[in-house]
Amino acid sequence: MLKLYFAPATCSLASHIALEETGAPYEAEKVDFKAGGQRAPDYLRLNPKGRVPALATDRGVLTETPAILAYIGQSFPGSAVGIPKDAFDFARIQAFNAYLCSTVHVAHAHKRRASRWADDPAAQEAMAAKVTANMGDCFELIENTMIAGPYVMGETYSIADPYLFTISGWLEGDGVDIARFPKVLAHRDRMAERPAVKAALSAAAG
Amino acid sequence: MLKLYFAPATCSLASHIALEETGAPYEAEKVDFKAGGQRAPDYLRLNPKGRVPALATDRGVLTETPAILAYIGQSFPGSAVGIPKDAFDFARIQAFNAYLCSTVHVAHAHKRRASRWADDPAAQEAMAAKVTANMGDCFELIENTMIAGPYVMGETYSIADPYLFTISGWLEGDGVDIARFPKVLAHRDRMAERPAVKAALSAAAG
Repeated sequence: MLKLYFAPATCSLASHIALEETGAPYEAEKVDFKAGGQRAPDYLRLNPKGRVPALATDRGVLTETPAILAYIGQSFPGSAVGIPKDAFDFARIQAFNAYLCSTVHVAHAHKRRASRWADDPAAQEAMAAKVTANMGDCFELIENTMIAGPYVMGETYSIADPYLFTISGWLEGDGVDIARFPKVLAHRDRMAERPAVKAALSAAAG
Repeated sequence: MLKLYFAPATCSLASHIALEETGAPYEAEKVDFKAGGQRAPDYLRLNPKGRVPALATDRGVLTETPAILAYIGQSFPGSAVGIPKDAFDFARIQAFNAYLCSTVHVAHAHKRRASRWADDPAAQEAMAAKVTANMGDCFELIENTMIAGPYVMGETYSIADPYLFTISGWLEGDGVDIARFPKVLAHRDRMAERPAVKAALSAAAG
């Protein structure tokens, strides 16, 4: 059985939702960031990166949200998060998810994780000060050039949707008014009604 | 025919190598960063992100290195960069490439692109000052926990290899001695002998 290592209010929510969408049984274990659980020796043996998400499978452990989402989708081809057979359709989904992980999540992380990129507290404050503008720019690009609507890829739900829902949930905390982005807002509202999203949010909070 | 938009000394080299590995004909067009070509209206219509790489296909334009690499691999299944049929094997490759794009490339970018994340010149200098340490940490993790050797995934070449070769090529410029990482160094030397790598380097320099 698949086992997800997650932490509340992190990008592991995307993988949590995708697992719920499959309808298959899985386990979930909370990594307690407040207690430094992500740096505990047992966890580092499992995931040397010391981050979440990590997905334990009977073949080994997978990390990185885009890889985990695609793996879940390929493992449950008949589910809502099944991967399209067409290579171009899949590549468009992967391009969207790669943008979220390499640019949008990174833009967000400069608020609370700025110490990753500079030791000087004044520099960390300068990074945090730019997060609102950068997240706004990222979502302007998403709104205007990436979301087809109602789902990211159009009428068909995909592994891009749980990931966008997860990251768009960070906008208010980053000082960005989501109402500037009507498609993103409608996407969030539509996603929030899905049973899998409700179940994952409830499990991730617990 | 596929057409790659590239710039010298950027991560587009990975896609360039992958295209060469397929043996199939393709076109390549240089985006002149010194002349601001990535912000030119014609290019922004093609790729609103204003970055490279972009891959024009007869179905539309793809961006983001991990997505482009996987698309090339799936489009040429019999080639050296063909994608494994097994979902877990593919996920391991995707996890490696996601780490390169979301963490390693980002660590590197804080040297010359720090203005993305803070406006204050002192903050930008503080970010640049940490790049050597961060790139060293990333490659320590790659060396000790990710490269099977001789290729990233072991005996089998994959789309992870052109991407690692591209980014490990940045180490010296970032102040990191690649000799600290014997597997990464051996990987670079082995890659440099491949005809596809020589051809892509030559084309990307031209």
